[in-house]
Amino acid sequence: MTEITRTFAETRQRGRGRVGLVPTMGFFHEGHSALMAAARAASETVVVSLFVNPLQFNDRADLERYPRDLDRDLEIAREQGVDLLFVPPAEEMYPLEPLTRVEVARVADHLEGPRRPGHFAGVATVVAKLFAGLQPDFAFFGRKDAQQLAVVRRLVLDLSFPVTVIGRPTLREADGLALSSRNVYLRPDDRPQALLLSMGLFAAADLAEAGHFEASELIAAVRRVGSGEDFEYVTLASQDTAQPIDRIDRPSFLALAARIGSVRLIDNVAFDLVAGNVIGDRGIRLSAPSRLYS
Amino acid sequence: MTEITRTFAETRQRGRGRVGLVPTMGFFHEGHSALMAAARAASETVVVSLFVNPLQFNDRADLERYPRDLDRDLEIAREQGVDLLFVPPAEEMYPLEPLTRVEVARVADHLEGPRRPGHFAGVATVVAKLFAGLQPDFAFFGRKDAQQLAVVRRLVLDLSFPVTVIGRPTLREADGLALSSRNVYLRPDDRPQALLLSMGLFAAADLAEAGHFEASELIAAVRRVGSGEDFEYVTLASQDTAQPIDRIDRPSFLALAARIGSVRLIDNVAFDLVAGNVIGDRGIRLSAPSRLYS
Repeated sequence: MTEITRTFAETRQRGRGRVGLVPTMGFFHEGHSALMAAARAASETVVVSLFVNPLQFNDRADLERYPRDLDRDLEIAREQGVDLLFVPPAEEMYPLEPLTRVEVARVADHLEGPRRPGHFAGVATVVAKLFAGLQPDFAFFGRKDAQQLAVVRRLVLDLSFPVTVIGRPTLREADGLALSSRNVYLRPDDRPQALLLSMGLFAAADLAEAGHFEASELIAAVRRVGSGEDFEYVTLASQDTAQPIDRIDRPSFLALAARIGSVRLIDNVAFDLVAGNVIGDRGIRLSAPSRLYS
Repeated sequence: MTEITRTFAETRQRGRGRVGLVPTMGFFHEGHSALMAAARAASETVVVSLFVNPLQFNDRADLERYPRDLDRDLEIAREQGVDLLFVPPAEEMYPLEPLTRVEVARVADHLEGPRRPGHFAGVATVVAKLFAGLQPDFAFFGRKDAQQLAVVRRLVLDLSFPVTVIGRPTLREADGLALSSRNVYLRPDDRPQALLLSMGLFAAADLAEAGHFEASELIAAVRRVGSGEDFEYVTLASQDTAQPIDRIDRPSFLALAARIGSVRLIDNVAFDLVAGNVIGDRGIRLSAPSRLYS
């Protein structure tokens, strides 16, 4: 039975045993469901926070059109056995104008950082607040936002939060497109172009697993597959610090951002080192259409 | 029995019931003892953290000559019934170069802020880390550092830390000088001049309690008493935001900084509103010499 909570205090006080937190901005898709399922498996109490955080939107229009549907979200949370859906009103989040900012230097310097000024400070500040106010034992994030994951991991280390941060594979639509709440704004005729993004990343992952570790080669593969794309960047970066690197010589990810019609999409494949081998995490594909479209 | 702990995890795990934290940089004087006693009265477990935080020293020489004496500090902690003296080694505090910074805007803009660049970001970052890693229920700070107290209170509010912050009166030597670990560096012939600081503040407090609420009048009183002083500032500010204000129309404090010989001293009186009356908090005077000098 999922209950909706409105304050940090009641949410914290209702946690029994180990608490797993899934921070979200709502409008759940299968990516969120997968995070809730992972939290369910690891925790006695599963808390999903739902707050569309104005601090992390650098673009006001993007904030305003961000999709919202609480009834639908509550239903999905119920299906996943979530205990508490924490939906704080603005006055609980920001009783006074927030003056405190949490910033993670360097990790935010590349990729999304310069293209979304203030975004990662907004993310770091709200995640620090959720960790401070809810005191979870685990927190679950998707690997799709690889740089965000790096920011959160460094925040936890630097501030000594006793939170284990768990990154889970990207969920993808059956055709390979990474799930995103923003996908609902893609027009049908933009779709073929959007698919070239993940196809390029998969081609690069194939190359890497065949022993081609140079960033230049992997990036060229992505750009070749998506030759008509309006790429903002295609970059190989370290998982720890999100700094660009020249070759896969540590846990890393190959990330891109591109504009497709009116929508800005990001995607990546992560490269993990498993027993000395480079393994590409291409994410998990749905076998049926996402409920985003139902 | 006071035990020394070295890691956040063991310190947090040994906390039973409500935990009261006194964050310090060591070299304890009666001001610290009073904070420990307040923590003892309010908490089942009293934790005193001792870490000379490089982040909050803008002046490297000041950091290097900051006095340290762990044996002496442990003895004082024992006298006050402290349970855990948390003395983290540098590698526990900063296993990697810290990239995360916590900043509280506006509250740090005046008074000490511009004169000690980076100081309050250092304070806010280390206090956030102590609150995140130790999860105390209460935290005790002296009112001598009135702006620091405002920074910490706003940090707690903005980041939703479930910590009750308690500000305690300044302890003073028998002659009125506010206790500070730095007092040991005052030369005997600087002492008469140092005394004019608290005398000026007390004169202003007398005025305020007699109904003179204008900042200009109170500041003039301090400057008149200390007419030979090398003041950096004398300012009336709000307790909430440490912004300068023109009159005592809310909880506020009259603060000053001055150089006496080679030592930079700060002091203040707080003005609280009690049942419609303005009451000056002049602190608490020792009747005997401070153990700083023994």
